[in-house]
Amino acid sequence: MSKALPKRSENYSEWYNEIVKRADLAENSAVRGCMVIKPYGYAIWEKMQSALDDMFKATGHVNAYFPLFVPKSFLEKEEEHAEGFAKECAVVTHYRLKANPDGKGLVVDPNAKLEEELIIRPTSETVIWNTYKSWIQSWRDLPLLINQWCNIVRWEMRTRLFLRTTEFLWQEGHTAHVTEQEAVEETERMLGVYATFAEDWIALPVIRGLKSPNERFAGAVETYCIEALMQDGKALQAGTSHFLGQNFSKSFEVQFVNKENKLEHPWATSWGVSTRLMGALIMAHSDDNGLVLPPKLAPVQVVIVPIYKTPEDLAKISEKAMPIFEQLKAAGVSVKYDDDDKQRSGWKFAEYELKGVPIRLAMGMRDLENGTVEVARRDTLTKETVSLDDVIDHIHKLLEEMQAAIYARALKFREDNTFSVDTWDQFKDQIEKGGFILAHWDGTAETEEKIKNETKATIRCIPLDAVEEDGKCVYSGAPSSKRVVFARAY
Amino acid sequence: MSKALPKRSENYSEWYNEIVKRADLAENSAVRGCMVIKPYGYAIWEKMQSALDDMFKATGHVNAYFPLFVPKSFLEKEEEHAEGFAKECAVVTHYRLKANPDGKGLVVDPNAKLEEELIIRPTSETVIWNTYKSWIQSWRDLPLLINQWCNIVRWEMRTRLFLRTTEFLWQEGHTAHVTEQEAVEETERMLGVYATFAEDWIALPVIRGLKSPNERFAGAVETYCIEALMQDGKALQAGTSHFLGQNFSKSFEVQFVNKENKLEHPWATSWGVSTRLMGALIMAHSDDNGLVLPPKLAPVQVVIVPIYKTPEDLAKISEKAMPIFEQLKAAGVSVKYDDDDKQRSGWKFAEYELKGVPIRLAMGMRDLENGTVEVARRDTLTKETVSLDDVIDHIHKLLEEMQAAIYARALKFREDNTFSVDTWDQFKDQIEKGGFILAHWDGTAETEEKIKNETKATIRCIPLDAVEEDGKCVYSGAPSSKRVVFARAY
Repeated sequence: MSKALPKRSENYSEWYNEIVKRADLAENSAVRGCMVIKPYGYAIWEKMQSALDDMFKATGHVNAYFPLFVPKSFLEKEEEHAEGFAKECAVVTHYRLKANPDGKGLVVDPNAKLEEELIIRPTSETVIWNTYKSWIQSWRDLPLLINQWCNIVRWEMRTRLFLRTTEFLWQEGHTAHVTEQEAVEETERMLGVYATFAEDWIALPVIRGLKSPNERFAGAVETYCIEALMQDGKALQAGTSHFLGQNFSKSFEVQFVNKENKLEHPWATSWGVSTRLMGALIMAHSDDNGLVLPPKLAPVQVVIVPIYKTPEDLAKISEKAMPIFEQLKAAGVSVKYDDDDKQRSGWKFAEYELKGVPIRLAMGMRDLENGTVEVARRDTLTKETVSLDDVIDHIHKLLEEMQAAIYARALKFREDNTFSVDTWDQFKDQIEKGGFILAHWDGTAETEEKIKNETKATIRCIPLDAVEEDGKCVYSGAPSSKRVVFARAY
Repeated sequence: MSKALPKRSENYSEWYNEIVKRADLAENSAVRGCMVIKPYGYAIWEKMQSALDDMFKATGHVNAYFPLFVPKSFLEKEEEHAEGFAKECAVVTHYRLKANPDGKGLVVDPNAKLEEELIIRPTSETVIWNTYKSWIQSWRDLPLLINQWCNIVRWEMRTRLFLRTTEFLWQEGHTAHVTEQEAVEETERMLGVYATFAEDWIALPVIRGLKSPNERFAGAVETYCIEALMQDGKALQAGTSHFLGQNFSKSFEVQFVNKENKLEHPWATSWGVSTRLMGALIMAHSDDNGLVLPPKLAPVQVVIVPIYKTPEDLAKISEKAMPIFEQLKAAGVSVKYDDDDKQRSGWKFAEYELKGVPIRLAMGMRDLENGTVEVARRDTLTKETVSLDDVIDHIHKLLEEMQAAIYARALKFREDNTFSVDTWDQFKDQIEKGGFILAHWDGTAETEEKIKNETKATIRCIPLDAVEEDGKCVYSGAPSSKRVVFARAY
């Protein structure tokens, strides 16, 4: 058996890296900062995609696909956007290689230089708004509610599997509307979809809020976000939804004829979540034994392990186990029967724990005699003996119970690690210990910047449900009307 | 109403372009050779993906994701492969833009030049086999059966929507096996999956065969393919499955310990289909009125159009129509009720015909009195009046019947346009008229090349079920033991 994982309490960062690696979720590729998402990790991502895609479609969106390449001139059109992304662009300059005239191998063919450089999309507002120009003529063409699943490249200097990689997978919604209000409603609706997904599927409680102007998406009028707390007390931004105003419709000269027969620029939103959610999932729930997966996102929800010494015993156990397997499968539960004789059952138990399989059933000869099965749940690591007659019902209930329990545990953790702080000394003290800090802020970028420089804490968001109360900025003492959320963040 | 489509008989090429455009399937983007796949086109692609993905999983494959970037040195490792793809590579040379010091806009930052150029993947054998090196140690790690859905870039000079684009979407399977035989079996199994998908879903009859050495994938030992015939008599390669031998495992130094404790190189396959299948779908079945979709791939299978003059009439029709809508929906049929009052029903009929919606139900006041509904099928453009009591059953049967009928029509077309040819004069004559030509070939690359130069016909494949018979090469007169398939091709 391989050696134990590092403990969260001793080295959280190393614990994370090792879980990603040993649970076969992802690994670094030969290309700097790019990851290989391994089959087990990808199966979780597919479940996320499928649930999100259903939610997008249920809210009236359709999928489409836009080009990977952004002409440099497109990026230049929206000034803030250009400034925000220019420093991390992968640039295609040539379209051909040729045999090396001076020796072995291939070299870039200097005769195949592009007239205009192409950027690998760091996000697709520019390409999409350039396309919308011909799609939007009249108010009848609106709203346009489109989503795209694709890969994205941002040349990050410090990368971390799932959390920050040069290439990542995501979805990006891009919508166009007749009125400002409709676009704001869409921005909020999609934030709601993300929050619901985070809570109901990832079992991850999130705070819904607005970014401070400093932290807005480059080109947005307003950025909404969902923020989650990881077990080491650091925050993770799990999704963003942007109200783009008319910035892109103006930059790309998109206009429509309104009902009064006048030309107007449409109002825009964009919103996205990425494979970063995989990082959130891992860091929020897992323990020192490995991954803990909420049942709704587990590629294998139930594993059945027969415990036997002879082929005859295995045959007897299988006779009882297979009907359970078949019934669960028929009921839509993702179940695996592991009778592989190349590994001992102890090794299997550890492996399924490491991989976060929610429920493990073990059946040995004594269970057979007693008409029972041992049921182990991954989140609490508890076991119980259940009668074969009851086991199907039991599993259905348990899967629901575990989904709720994992959420409840994460919520309790967040509540236990959220602190209202009123003085600068308290703030500096608490930020070292981690957690969400609720504190008053004077609303200026200067204060925000100073707090960041002194403590590495950023404003995660201004919560949508913040209570109005008179207070003084924790840093400057200037008056403030509500608390915002500070934390160190991924 | 917009003007009629060009006729297939007059300008097939223009007919194709116009269908792609007017049925809202795809359009050219601002980036040369790259397409935007529009929502309606993407919805068809999603159905293809979903069906194929199920078939891949049913044959034991899992999905994963590998990086977009291929280091230049990787491409160089397998010589034939490098030669095959070098001329059409998009090359990333820099990772940052900066403000233009001489004026407005952005320029490539010369200080951000990559040490080694990165190629946008034209296919992923090299990246994947470099990764497999650490995944494959023992015979226990095999077979490795992995698939990836992703985007691909090949810098094509002459592009055509769906058929040949600089960026396209595809899936690529990459498997590794202990024995040569197992890898060959896998290659053939996946060819079978593609053929089944083409026939059962796209309703497209295909010939399964082997490529001649000339037409093999760069780096393959053997390339299997499925070939289909389009309505203009040209062939279209609809999918390929490659037996790669040990070429990549040797180039990337991948070895495993076999059961006898000796080191061996694994045997490999790769196989792919792409958004090109969209082109095949369109060109195989559509007619001068627009798209014809086999029901299994239609985003909307049934549309219900109420025909009314007053809101009161609409209310009465809706009362009868909605139960049909609900029953179909509950039965898993994709159905739309179009009571949009901004368009006349004549416009709607033409629009649904253009978009290939398989079944159109029309309900007017007279139908209401008679307890009937008018059922129009897209493939034959025939109409019949059906009693409301029978319509659900009728639709279920009709959807199945249409799927079979569209296939049967395409098969008959292929049979009518497949010709056994024994003389060179006949060959030259027939190739001008189009169709598949079955002719003897002497097996040499020279002859193949000469035939191509003189007639633009290529060997589409050597059919797997070719009958052994003594014959003489249609060009050289040299002896041959079976006929191969020639055609002009997309």
